[in-house]
Amino acid sequence: MTTVTVTASQQYDVKIGRGLLSAVGKEASRHFQGRTAAVVSDTNVAPYYLETVTESLRRGGFRVCSFVFPAGEAQKNGGTYLDLLEFLAQEHLTRADGLIALGGGVVGDLTGFAAATFLRGISFLQVPTTLLAAVDASVGGKTAIDLQGGKNLAGAFYQPCGVLCDLDTLESLPASVFADGCAEVIKYGMIGDAALLDRLEKTDFRADPEEIVARCVAQKRDLVEQDEFDTGARQLLNLGHTVGHGVEACSAYTISHGKAVAIGMTIVTRAAVSYGRCPRGVLSRLTALLERYHLPIHTEYLAQSLYEKTLSDKKRSGDTIALVVPIDWGKSQLQQIPVGELAAWIERGNAL
Amino acid sequence: MTTVTVTASQQYDVKIGRGLLSAVGKEASRHFQGRTAAVVSDTNVAPYYLETVTESLRRGGFRVCSFVFPAGEAQKNGGTYLDLLEFLAQEHLTRADGLIALGGGVVGDLTGFAAATFLRGISFLQVPTTLLAAVDASVGGKTAIDLQGGKNLAGAFYQPCGVLCDLDTLESLPASVFADGCAEVIKYGMIGDAALLDRLEKTDFRADPEEIVARCVAQKRDLVEQDEFDTGARQLLNLGHTVGHGVEACSAYTISHGKAVAIGMTIVTRAAVSYGRCPRGVLSRLTALLERYHLPIHTEYLAQSLYEKTLSDKKRSGDTIALVVPIDWGKSQLQQIPVGELAAWIERGNAL
Repeated sequence: MTTVTVTASQQYDVKIGRGLLSAVGKEASRHFQGRTAAVVSDTNVAPYYLETVTESLRRGGFRVCSFVFPAGEAQKNGGTYLDLLEFLAQEHLTRADGLIALGGGVVGDLTGFAAATFLRGISFLQVPTTLLAAVDASVGGKTAIDLQGGKNLAGAFYQPCGVLCDLDTLESLPASVFADGCAEVIKYGMIGDAALLDRLEKTDFRADPEEIVARCVAQKRDLVEQDEFDTGARQLLNLGHTVGHGVEACSAYTISHGKAVAIGMTIVTRAAVSYGRCPRGVLSRLTALLERYHLPIHTEYLAQSLYEKTLSDKKRSGDTIALVVPIDWGKSQLQQIPVGELAAWIERGNAL
Repeated sequence: MTTVTVTASQQYDVKIGRGLLSAVGKEASRHFQGRTAAVVSDTNVAPYYLETVTESLRRGGFRVCSFVFPAGEAQKNGGTYLDLLEFLAQEHLTRADGLIALGGGVVGDLTGFAAATFLRGISFLQVPTTLLAAVDASVGGKTAIDLQGGKNLAGAFYQPCGVLCDLDTLESLPASVFADGCAEVIKYGMIGDAALLDRLEKTDFRADPEEIVARCVAQKRDLVEQDEFDTGARQLLNLGHTVGHGVEACSAYTISHGKAVAIGMTIVTRAAVSYGRCPRGVLSRLTALLERYHLPIHTEYLAQSLYEKTLSDKKRSGDTIALVVPIDWGKSQLQQIPVGELAAWIERGNAL
């Protein structure tokens, strides 16, 4: 097992290893003073793991209740959020009790936001069961729900009291969901870890997931610690996300987040090469790597449509847009692009 | 004008004086970097003051939009909260813009919670228009909505960037709403300001509201600064509130918060006298003072019903309940009461 310690407004450990679902009860008893634990999960994940986690919590001395909602991003909404809060009230959870987020990013975001706001804040443990949630959502303290007006528009910065990444759960992931996580892993490499990229080129991720997940978590930790409230260095984590958001929006969210990020990374890298800001070889290695991990490297959407959807993203601030641009293998930079130039970037990046 | 500076996780000024509604625009331009201000108010308050505040904001250079919801505690719910968030999204508020909470405690609580969570936190100014909101809700950073499962069960600790208490607005209050505020003012006296109690016995509140409001605000400020996240000293502010919540719940919230607090203070003081923890004279002076300010001093509800409703309050933690107990004129103490003894406390306190 590898432990990565995160020092945000609250210090906590991300533990990465095998068999950790059975250790949830022990971990919870370290953090929750109360005797009740509420497990939040979705209909994809609960059938596989809820029983193991519930048993572990009972062995840890907890009364366990569980809230399982229909899987899918569409459920990360205000209605599910209020239902979860009412459930916690009905179950008489007190400030001393705690929540367990058992699932992927949707479960983590929703549970974290409920934990941040129920009784003005109770403890929660993250138990990510997807690669994407393990490397991305488990560090950073961003919790959120979607509004009709847009994704992640309501939420809070709120840290878990601990994160348990059970690598066994990654093996049960559908190939497509696993690939989504690989897009984020490759993103960490492109931001600042050339050695990670080299390793992903040479051996399969599954050969040593523990070290790879730990490297990603540690990198995110380092960026988040520099910038807990996301006003500077942390924006590097948006590599591929700004244009990727446009891809997701164009597809009415039928293209998954990870795949949209893969396309977004390709577009911004190709544009950077075209503008002479990045060596050409970086693009060919990146696309080969993405394909190796079954990720898409282009989209049929027109540059103009991508541009319009990208602009509606909330990362825009005034007349410029912050774009993360690869400048070498394993190295990226934040650049403020005038909104007027963004269309040209996407045009160049989306060419074949 | 009197200014009380609060140093919580964010420092801000509470300004208390006359004619301040017309200064909202100037104050907002000091705090909001953006150009849009959203005023949140209710149907009781908006007809009186929304125009003045809107005009002031326009003079301050803002585009103004407003969200007015039906008055009453029943509206401080998840539905209104989500409607407000969607409204802010529709109006394209960015992290640089801000909200104005124009109204009493319900408006302040709801607006503060929306500000805390929209885009994970944007600025808001409090403009309390009731005495209760001025002395209580404007300091402390507690924001909340009610759930079906109980009052204030969801919320966040979130500080306004400034508070403007316009004393002119207090003069338009219905007598009953004004009395609600007086209950909180008397509470501040009972917690730790015997001189304030003496003054309230001798002269009418309205003779010098500025100093009285400022004393209450400063006292709350001192307690909150010792204990921003409400785990210790700040609990003194709950004098009368624990049993008061039981009174409100028994009445299905037809008894107002201030009147319930008055009854709660009377019950806990009578019990304290009965247990020999407080001189008898304190009870008679307290009840005389409450009556002078048109506040109730007893309830028809049975002790058993009050006990059950009180227990469902969130201040319970494990097997004890924190009760604030008057021990002298202008002096109270926090005591952990075993849950099993609470019924006896209420029984004694509710006797005539």
